[in-house]
Amino acid sequence: MKLLFPLALASVLSAVADPLPSWQETETKKAIVSFVENVTTPGSADYVDPAARIATFDNDGCLWSEQPIYFQAFYIFDRIKELAPRHPEWKEEEPFASVLKGEVEKALEGGEEALLKMAMATHAGLTDEEFRATVGKWLATARHPKTKRPYTEMVFQPMLELLAYLRANEFKTFIVSGGGIDFLRVFAEDVYGIPPQQVVGSSIKAGYEVRDGKPVIVKLPELDFIDDKEGKPVGIHQHIGRRPIFAAGNSDGDFQMLEWTTSGEGARFGLLVHHTDAEREWAYDRESHVGRLDRGLKEGPDRGWTIVSMKDDWNRVYPAAP
Amino acid sequence: MKLLFPLALASVLSAVADPLPSWQETETKKAIVSFVENVTTPGSADYVDPAARIATFDNDGCLWSEQPIYFQAFYIFDRIKELAPRHPEWKEEEPFASVLKGEVEKALEGGEEALLKMAMATHAGLTDEEFRATVGKWLATARHPKTKRPYTEMVFQPMLELLAYLRANEFKTFIVSGGGIDFLRVFAEDVYGIPPQQVVGSSIKAGYEVRDGKPVIVKLPELDFIDDKEGKPVGIHQHIGRRPIFAAGNSDGDFQMLEWTTSGEGARFGLLVHHTDAEREWAYDRESHVGRLDRGLKEGPDRGWTIVSMKDDWNRVYPAAP
Repeated sequence: MKLLFPLALASVLSAVADPLPSWQETETKKAIVSFVENVTTPGSADYVDPAARIATFDNDGCLWSEQPIYFQAFYIFDRIKELAPRHPEWKEEEPFASVLKGEVEKALEGGEEALLKMAMATHAGLTDEEFRATVGKWLATARHPKTKRPYTEMVFQPMLELLAYLRANEFKTFIVSGGGIDFLRVFAEDVYGIPPQQVVGSSIKAGYEVRDGKPVIVKLPELDFIDDKEGKPVGIHQHIGRRPIFAAGNSDGDFQMLEWTTSGEGARFGLLVHHTDAEREWAYDRESHVGRLDRGLKEGPDRGWTIVSMKDDWNRVYPAAP
Repeated sequence: MKLLFPLALASVLSAVADPLPSWQETETKKAIVSFVENVTTPGSADYVDPAARIATFDNDGCLWSEQPIYFQAFYIFDRIKELAPRHPEWKEEEPFASVLKGEVEKALEGGEEALLKMAMATHAGLTDEEFRATVGKWLATARHPKTKRPYTEMVFQPMLELLAYLRANEFKTFIVSGGGIDFLRVFAEDVYGIPPQQVVGSSIKAGYEVRDGKPVIVKLPELDFIDDKEGKPVGIHQHIGRRPIFAAGNSDGDFQMLEWTTSGEGARFGLLVHHTDAEREWAYDRESHVGRLDRGLKEGPDRGWTIVSMKDDWNRVYPAAP
């Protein structure tokens, strides 16, 4: 019975209070509310059965910030520094050498491949439990270089409200991120209310073995899946097995996810968060080294996608400090 | 609000009626009910939060029959016959040639590798939608050679009740099968009440492309993952991201899933269906070519696993014909 009261309470609250208080009263908010009412009102031509109310969200730049670099890259850099004494060869080997010298930009020059190399070197060999413990410890203590906040407090308050609003309307909310699936799972349930089985992300392979009588899952130094661009609809297919009716992203890495979602039959919603707020967050799009948004801005409006201007559509960005 | 009433109703019903009417009043049934009450009673030392109530079920031989061969193999054979006119080379090429001559045993001599070869040849190249349509059509018309029933009516009534009982107690039920994930998803929701995102299985790779302006998911002729033996805990890790507290299987292919599940801390339940009923279903274990159960029978009892004797623990096997 534990589940009943929060659900009932959420329903009552949503009937009497604004479920999206951090969203300005703009066309954007109207479009979201109108879509949700349309697909959930029995008898509506666009009515969708609760089982098919699947909503997918990118994470970096969509649910939390991603500047000056992806937050998981900060974790990887900190792990490299921590593990360096056991890897004397890293002093000479790129991209590790640049990280150890504090030359972050140079370390990232190798792009995705360099980041993947560092992710595998720092993640592989750990059991799943060990990995989760290192991420948990890091999230509890690390601070963002600019805001000095814990990374988990750099999530977007309006998006937290949107997730809760969709769930109160019997949507299932999923993360579909280019970031590491197991990294995300450490905090997604507490921070976003999204359980581990509803997280889709990039992954390295894993193995199962019995060590001294104790079964463990071990992370292996082999790429399994990159959940970005064309990979996002594929990851959705493999993990969810059903086409979403709502998808939110913020970069061209999300283009195919929105394309896949909004080309299905019936009412569909595609949302792109446009980072337009240099004062409260960051302003970037076509020329950015992370979260580049170009094709989405060009083609999105003609495809019926809703472009959220952070500056104009949100009256607050981050949650109040606890 | 739609969700509230069925949930509440299920709770009331479970308090007044036997939720497992097809289970005999044996120690097996007592063990199941006692476990569920233990982990769901607030204040109990073994209480488990609903979010962590994960239950995983093998499919072939656990939720439905698997004799004389896996039902998906019948589908593959029928597809080979259907596609043969487009593949004249199959007349000479094994294992296809044997299938076309009706020599099933010879076609299966190559074991898992032969089956995989046939699965890829018949599944790959199709879009996800086309694949689902062929499976749906086959399930609607194909009949089992012995019982003459549709395959979806050869599911085990006691296991359907067990799935519903666990869900009424706020468990999330998952399939974790060596069978094809997309094959299972076609009927798992209707037949077992298990939605596509809660199905884990073996898979071939998939790609995303835009064909004549229409985005599609296409199945590719490349193995992605075999969800059997050590693969089951790995599949659980990748898809669910949380260790189950309840796992059910019937063969040594499920050994590692039960081992992984029951070696976690707190109350755990491992269940093996032992096919002991030659009259109502089939009787087989150590020497069987499908669903071989040997190590599980030897080590299961010492590991605290519950061995279900189909003959003695179930008062009915299949649902009544509709």
